[in-house]
Amino acid sequence: MSTQPARFVTAENLIVEELPWGTFHWLCRPDLVAAERLLLIRVHIPPGQGHAFHRHPEMEEAIYFLEGTGETWVDLERRDVHAGDCVHVPTNMVHATFNTGPRPLVALAILSPATCSGPMLIEVGHEEPWCRLRGSTPSGD
Amino acid sequence: MSTQPARFVTAENLIVEELPWGTFHWLCRPDLVAAERLLLIRVHIPPGQGHAFHRHPEMEEAIYFLEGTGETWVDLERRDVHAGDCVHVPTNMVHATFNTGPRPLVALAILSPATCSGPMLIEVGHEEPWCRLRGSTPSGD
Repeated sequence: MSTQPARFVTAENLIVEELPWGTFHWLCRPDLVAAERLLLIRVHIPPGQGHAFHRHPEMEEAIYFLEGTGETWVDLERRDVHAGDCVHVPTNMVHATFNTGPRPLVALAILSPATCSGPMLIEVGHEEPWCRLRGSTPSGD
Repeated sequence: MSTQPARFVTAENLIVEELPWGTFHWLCRPDLVAAERLLLIRVHIPPGQGHAFHRHPEMEEAIYFLEGTGETWVDLERRDVHAGDCVHVPTNMVHATFNTGPRPLVALAILSPATCSGPMLIEVGHEEPWCRLRGSTPSGD
């Protein structure tokens, strides 16, 4: 057994998690490295899919877009997003990201801190006003 | 004047900072968005350059590599790094990254929290054992 936590995470030791609306590549979390304040997930969203409106009650988030094109909401503000763009989501603020292009949308989701006392995520896509913001909401809530 | 902080940071509003060993594109910091726990910097390191050995006394860091090839040290562990790799640096642990390839090395440096009470960074490249770890150390300390 290793005597210390891993510092380097590559394709060989990242943790893959399949979700109904995409794939997570976990790059930084407490059971992988010695993370206390940072979670990093490379999120792959197929065309037409998305992570519908949700909030993280105890975590601040930043999203950095790596590939593809999409639309991101932070509270009631909507913006088209492309590779190189960054979105900041204050703690507990409702947000959502959808792939609006023909190719996979790939983004790095960064959350802090790395642990929380309650649920990490609360889905609100079926609540007002979020359920009315898009004509057809991809699965993901 | 805007009534609320920015949520979206793109090429149009990111903050550029030129350093002797590379260029910072600030994507998330408290004077740009409502960041409290997250700093994000896209770091561009030209061939032959690097950020020599240093530590962040109050901040945990993760580095995600976007383009190019390099070498990263965390404490006394050295690894080659490529696009898609991630490195985790516990609070106050000495680390360094150098561009070892023919193209720019581009990485996302992620630090938490977003503020600190003392210096954000302490350079240690001229101290033992760090000064002996590489034959020739690029500028950057």
